[in-house]
Amino acid sequence: MTRIALATDPQGQVISLVSDIAFHSAALKAAPACSLLVGEPEPKGNPLIHPRLTLSARAAFLPNKPAALRDHYLTQHPKAKLYLDFADFRFVRFAVTAGFLNGGFGQAFRLTPADLGLDLTGQKPGA
Amino acid sequence: MTRIALATDPQGQVISLVSDIAFHSAALKAAPACSLLVGEPEPKGNPLIHPRLTLSARAAFLPNKPAALRDHYLTQHPKAKLYLDFADFRFVRFAVTAGFLNGGFGQAFRLTPADLGLDLTGQKPGA
Repeated sequence: MTRIALATDPQGQVISLVSDIAFHSAALKAAPACSLLVGEPEPKGNPLIHPRLTLSARAAFLPNKPAALRDHYLTQHPKAKLYLDFADFRFVRFAVTAGFLNGGFGQAFRLTPADLGLDLTGQKPGA
Repeated sequence: MTRIALATDPQGQVISLVSDIAFHSAALKAAPACSLLVGEPEPKGNPLIHPRLTLSARAAFLPNKPAALRDHYLTQHPKAKLYLDFADFRFVRFAVTAGFLNGGFGQAFRLTPADLGLDLTGQKPGA
């Protein structure tokens, strides 16, 4: 488990920008099946009662950094302009296959990509 | 990835208390190799510049809830007294094999159990 910056691409798919040097990049290349946890706990109170969402996904590294994707990412993470163009940084797209919503103690739900509002029909394998 | 309550046992090993009903319990039983991320981001600022520690570990479920461990856990998570004795809740111990400290941008370090102050010499396999 590591902490990364999440964003969406112009089509609403989940992406991130990661460095080849980071341990998680080597791990994701070796084993693309992964999961993402979103939903930070509130500053106060028991973190286990705050909602969080686990996404099961398959990671695919993009071969380049298209201008439209680059610009879209920077609107979400403006400070990434400091390192986005470093040669070791790559976009990775997460093809979400399922979701697990934990809304607090005893409130766990299994979600499909449709439940999550993700239209995967236009997604090319490995893209 | 899911969020769980972490604690230590009286020997300083990392443990948690999880429900058999939770998805992560089935996942850990099927594949005990896992990792833990500790270190919540501060309420303000970029979460990527706040330190966090990834622990590589192997999960082992304990067959029972010894009184000493139960009491020790409750000193760390007093509200768990509401569910600790439910039949579906079990202790799981994480045998830590390595650590990865990310102290912020460009500050990643690989740590051994000795670096982490974990004495694993007395730990029985599967215990």
